[in-house]
Amino acid sequence: MYSQAELKELVEKAIANLAISTEAEKLTAPVKYILSIGGKRLRPVLALMSCNLFRDKIDEAVLPATGLEVFHNFTLVHDDIMDQAPVRRNLPTVHIRWNLNQAILSGDVMAFIANECFLQTPPASLARVFKAYNRAAVDVCIGQQLDMDFEKAAVVGHSEYLRMIEMKTASLIAASAKVGAIIGEAPEKDCDHMFEFGRNLGLAFQIQDDLLDVYGDAGVFGKASGGDIVSNKKTFLLLRALELSTGNTRKALEEQITEKNPDPAAKIRKVTEIYDSLNIREIAEQLANEYISGSLGHLEKVSADPERKKELTLLANSLIGRNK
Amino acid sequence: MYSQAELKELVEKAIANLAISTEAEKLTAPVKYILSIGGKRLRPVLALMSCNLFRDKIDEAVLPATGLEVFHNFTLVHDDIMDQAPVRRNLPTVHIRWNLNQAILSGDVMAFIANECFLQTPPASLARVFKAYNRAAVDVCIGQQLDMDFEKAAVVGHSEYLRMIEMKTASLIAASAKVGAIIGEAPEKDCDHMFEFGRNLGLAFQIQDDLLDVYGDAGVFGKASGGDIVSNKKTFLLLRALELSTGNTRKALEEQITEKNPDPAAKIRKVTEIYDSLNIREIAEQLANEYISGSLGHLEKVSADPERKKELTLLANSLIGRNK
Repeated sequence: MYSQAELKELVEKAIANLAISTEAEKLTAPVKYILSIGGKRLRPVLALMSCNLFRDKIDEAVLPATGLEVFHNFTLVHDDIMDQAPVRRNLPTVHIRWNLNQAILSGDVMAFIANECFLQTPPASLARVFKAYNRAAVDVCIGQQLDMDFEKAAVVGHSEYLRMIEMKTASLIAASAKVGAIIGEAPEKDCDHMFEFGRNLGLAFQIQDDLLDVYGDAGVFGKASGGDIVSNKKTFLLLRALELSTGNTRKALEEQITEKNPDPAAKIRKVTEIYDSLNIREIAEQLANEYISGSLGHLEKVSADPERKKELTLLANSLIGRNK
Repeated sequence: MYSQAELKELVEKAIANLAISTEAEKLTAPVKYILSIGGKRLRPVLALMSCNLFRDKIDEAVLPATGLEVFHNFTLVHDDIMDQAPVRRNLPTVHIRWNLNQAILSGDVMAFIANECFLQTPPASLARVFKAYNRAAVDVCIGQQLDMDFEKAAVVGHSEYLRMIEMKTASLIAASAKVGAIIGEAPEKDCDHMFEFGRNLGLAFQIQDDLLDVYGDAGVFGKASGGDIVSNKKTFLLLRALELSTGNTRKALEEQITEKNPDPAAKIRKVTEIYDSLNIREIAEQLANEYISGSLGHLEKVSADPERKKELTLLANSLIGRNK
């Protein structure tokens, strides 16, 4: 069995060794840039862990797993344009460092570099792997559309929000776990359990991300900026607070949202106080917990030695800060 | 054997029946829009003709062929953003009719709808078909990059231009012919000949397109606008004229290119006169002719009944206005 750290190392190596055509260096420089600025590599690592659950030899899964990361970064490049985000991981986004056209085109080619990775899947599982991936790719586009629609919508319910993150975030994480299982030649039923494992994990992951913006420990997670509050981002926290608040609390929250040119620090403090008065943190943490439990429930049902499930259990628990 | 018109009909039906998710209508409305505004459907028709060259039953090729058209339209949506083109086929482009973000995202999802089409390829040829397609998809991105680079370059040679259109235009037409041959279970060697048939056809096609802008019969081709001249577009004609002109002719051409706010009709007339004095039309027509001959040379070598090659021969000749 590989450790999570070893798998991340394998993924980093595969990304560094990606055969990217050099005829048009302007096209590929942004690809190398975005792929090199890191992140957790959650999707490929999860795919490899999922494969490793069913077999010791996982080398055939490395390139398809890398395809998941390339696709994910493709969405980052284009999402950053759509969100007009100037910075990602403390570095300028592609459309800022280069320009709009370059970000569109270099993003585009990543979709086909991802395809190339998936085309390296062993023939016996190629069709199933590619279909699982591509279903997720379409879902991610739908999720991004819902996200953009929400930005313009006056009212968004928390269940609509959950559907959006299911499409935009959870579907690719679900596909990652499933792709690994397919290449690991797991029985169909186990592949489906791994999909559900990933789907629940993805939902928990996004809610946790929303929580970290407000309650994260900057030292541990490198977050807790309150940026979501300042920008009125429709997170699970804000939407739930809008649903649960009444009377003066509701009025105070609306005031914070609509105030032009507020002092950021004051706005973060005041909105956090409102969240606290409504128990938003506990509500969100409980939901993330439920998703992780759902995730682990599916993992339990997988027909593999419980000993082999430890690494995935650890990953799931660590995502919501359970350190066991 | 199917006629070209029958195949176009099959393609139109397949496009109209494409299973496009309806959860996010805002996402898919631009997809349906761009796919519905027509064009020659050259790529899918060519793929089907190529398949039909080797077998009578071509239904298994219809969806992969449709994928070629979906991909082509994906590139149109994104290229129109990059070129800031307001109009395509007399209708507003997607980013004008909707907006930038919508054009990026609806374009993106088309790449995965194309994948879905290719995933319907019969298992025996799936990997080869997908690899042929994806190689072209990457090439098209490289070609678009070269095209963008040329717009900013001071000097571009005609051989660089030919390399650019080989990537941006010819590679997908080559892949279309090859994909059809693969699904038609043609021998490997014939698949390669069909690729070369398509590659030469694609090169002739683009040069012909450049010619039509200046010398086209508006009644027949719906073109001959001189728009390329007005916008100083680096076409084969202009690049060749810049290479071949000397002395006063060169000076006159440079003047036309650099003049600010010229009268469009006068500019078209003057540049066309320069082209004529340099025999640019004949040079371009001869090159297009050579590519068509190259194309037909590869078709001849294909191990199929000459009788079955008539439709493809007709298509190739009609592309450059040879009516026989």
